[in-house]
Amino acid sequence: MTGKLYGLGLGPGDPELITLKAHRILTGAPVIAYPAPDTGPSFARQIAAPYIGAHQLEVPIIVPMRVERFPAQEVYDGAAETLARHLDAGSDVAVLCEGDPFFYGSFMYLFERLSGRYETEIVPGVSSMMAAAAALGRPLAARNDVLSIVPGPLDDDIMQARIEAAGAVAIIKVGRHFARIRALIEAMGLTSCAGYVERVSLAEQRVLPLADVTEITAPYFSMILIYKGGEGWNARTAAATE
Amino acid sequence: MTGKLYGLGLGPGDPELITLKAHRILTGAPVIAYPAPDTGPSFARQIAAPYIGAHQLEVPIIVPMRVERFPAQEVYDGAAETLARHLDAGSDVAVLCEGDPFFYGSFMYLFERLSGRYETEIVPGVSSMMAAAAALGRPLAARNDVLSIVPGPLDDDIMQARIEAAGAVAIIKVGRHFARIRALIEAMGLTSCAGYVERVSLAEQRVLPLADVTEITAPYFSMILIYKGGEGWNARTAAATE
Repeated sequence: MTGKLYGLGLGPGDPELITLKAHRILTGAPVIAYPAPDTGPSFARQIAAPYIGAHQLEVPIIVPMRVERFPAQEVYDGAAETLARHLDAGSDVAVLCEGDPFFYGSFMYLFERLSGRYETEIVPGVSSMMAAAAALGRPLAARNDVLSIVPGPLDDDIMQARIEAAGAVAIIKVGRHFARIRALIEAMGLTSCAGYVERVSLAEQRVLPLADVTEITAPYFSMILIYKGGEGWNARTAAATE
Repeated sequence: MTGKLYGLGLGPGDPELITLKAHRILTGAPVIAYPAPDTGPSFARQIAAPYIGAHQLEVPIIVPMRVERFPAQEVYDGAAETLARHLDAGSDVAVLCEGDPFFYGSFMYLFERLSGRYETEIVPGVSSMMAAAAALGRPLAARNDVLSIVPGPLDDDIMQARIEAAGAVAIIKVGRHFARIRALIEAMGLTSCAGYVERVSLAEQRVLPLADVTEITAPYFSMILIYKGGEGWNARTAAATE
């Protein structure tokens, strides 16, 4: 009997935002794997830390930052073979994923290599996008709105067209593109209905109207939400969270 | 001391897909409110049922089906006043929400009426969209894909433009629009990269390639996902779930 592979969505960061199902599988799996940078801690492991036991074998998958943006096949080839050895030995393997595994997640690179050979289950998780809307106190989308999720690295012309065409927009992977994106939103006259969220659901969370952000850069874990359906920014909510 | 209002995301249907946080608040709240149709059970209550205790006061919010599509202000005005009485009496009130409260959820109608008067917290939940991608075994979106969420009631011309412009699409609220939407996807040549999911994460879940759906209607809780980035449909996954 070979083991079973799990892609576990762990939610946006707060360990209490993992699901009961992910918690059950996480605490029961003999082998736990997670992406980790070449230096510094793994965010996925940090989310799961309160639930990991000393008896569980941990397999960090070292993904150099350079590689995270342009996935190198070799990294995932090697990781897949490592996990395959544990699965062949009959051990279930839980791969920890920030947010949701299939919402812009790197788990797909392991999934495409292993799901044809081993029983595989994806456990969906709370996305940081949903957590950001909750923190902002504004709907992500409602009624018959089109909601578009737009990655920050996209060019201005594409981004502008997608923002114009949608009733609601979530701009993800903002990071070093922050100043350019903010200028675009301002030029489009949408700053008053844009909110900014950084490190959502963590103790260091910051939530504020985009107009109030004074920095010119943003961390990787930041997001801009635009909701055209609202009547201006909810100042009460923003004030309460700063 | 007035009570605190919670909007609790309960996830797509499987009671094990609620978060540890929603579970804690749900089991501790003296008053639980949830939307319910004029006849038949409340889906939100069904998800939470394993965790509701006999000591908890239940407040169904009767939303006639007609009204769910065109929200009547009176329904939510009345519900808000009912909840306000409990909050004024010092009781915390947990409003149960299918999926995520701010992802096309009706909780926004209570939020806009009550959050200015009472401390309010949204607990994000797993969206049925993430659960559908997990069930299909296909990424919802990856890398720099634009992902557009398109409500099924929209007209063909708008829907076609949004599908053309995005790398990945989730069509929600499919229901009685199913035949029209399927014809549009076929005319666009995208059937081979479209998947269909019905009642995701429940025992009655159905997951199959759109091309294999023989019915001409779909239930309200159904969704079509289009992912242009993949290399054809994953027949293995689809076969395993039928």
